[in-house]
Amino acid sequence: MTIREFQEADWPQVWPILREVVRAQETFTYDPNLSPDEAREVWIEPAPGLTVVAVRSERVLGSAKMGTNRAGPGSHVCTASFIVAAGARGQGVGTALCRFALDWAHQRGYAGMQFNAVAASNRTAVSVYERLGFRIVGTVPGAFAHPTFGRVGLHVMYQEL
Amino acid sequence: MTIREFQEADWPQVWPILREVVRAQETFTYDPNLSPDEAREVWIEPAPGLTVVAVRSERVLGSAKMGTNRAGPGSHVCTASFIVAAGARGQGVGTALCRFALDWAHQRGYAGMQFNAVAASNRTAVSVYERLGFRIVGTVPGAFAHPTFGRVGLHVMYQEL
Repeated sequence: MTIREFQEADWPQVWPILREVVRAQETFTYDPNLSPDEAREVWIEPAPGLTVVAVRSERVLGSAKMGTNRAGPGSHVCTASFIVAAGARGQGVGTALCRFALDWAHQRGYAGMQFNAVAASNRTAVSVYERLGFRIVGTVPGAFAHPTFGRVGLHVMYQEL
Repeated sequence: MTIREFQEADWPQVWPILREVVRAQETFTYDPNLSPDEAREVWIEPAPGLTVVAVRSERVLGSAKMGTNRAGPGSHVCTASFIVAAGARGQGVGTALCRFALDWAHQRGYAGMQFNAVAASNRTAVSVYERLGFRIVGTVPGAFAHPTFGRVGLHVMYQEL
């Protein structure tokens, strides 16, 4: 598996992955009915941010986007988001993408990486993040409406770099 | 002092207040060099969100904007932001605006109100919010670069409604 910068030709593979993740409403606080154009706007980060894809044998397995979390006095902290294709989960794709984002953030000189809204029910993601050095800074109670579990907490997670 | 919906004719009074707050870089994680057009886009909330002004004798003393905090599975929680004119601080304007936002959120049926990024050094705001029922859910260490105090924490604050 290689991780490389997103190219226009990847979109026909990235969009179905993103659409499935967003429609499931299990992980992201995105509008589940995001149009392809809105999705592009959300997912493809203009410089100095970056969007990458994880690829094996020309198949896109997942994608990550990374960039500055807040403007002005908050701009020394970055953030990132990750999606993994349903058929490629449990193979370390998310971990590899997160490691890539951390390396990128280090190189850019960010002071830390923050995840603003991690559904507490998304245990796989939380444990990947914790293994890679993030900790839960706080949890907004019931702020995520999970289709199966109902309202669960939304973690804010952070790692100093 | 009355609080009413923002009207176009208020902008010449709202913009200088917002500009001063943003340029000071002491409270908001906004770009300090926000242009008037960008500021309008950030501050004037389209429906179903709302922007209001606090007015006394036709003078705008402060303003608040309120709306949904996150999309999709996060859309039952709202957020709000407040600015008060330098010459009108310490007179309860921020408290009145925050009470208005809480009433608005109640009427709209939101489950809670979240503040995503409250500078820990902004003690006046933190104590107003706590007095009105918010609590600090967590603090991202050093995530706010204060011009005088250096890097201070950014609180996430929340209140169930």
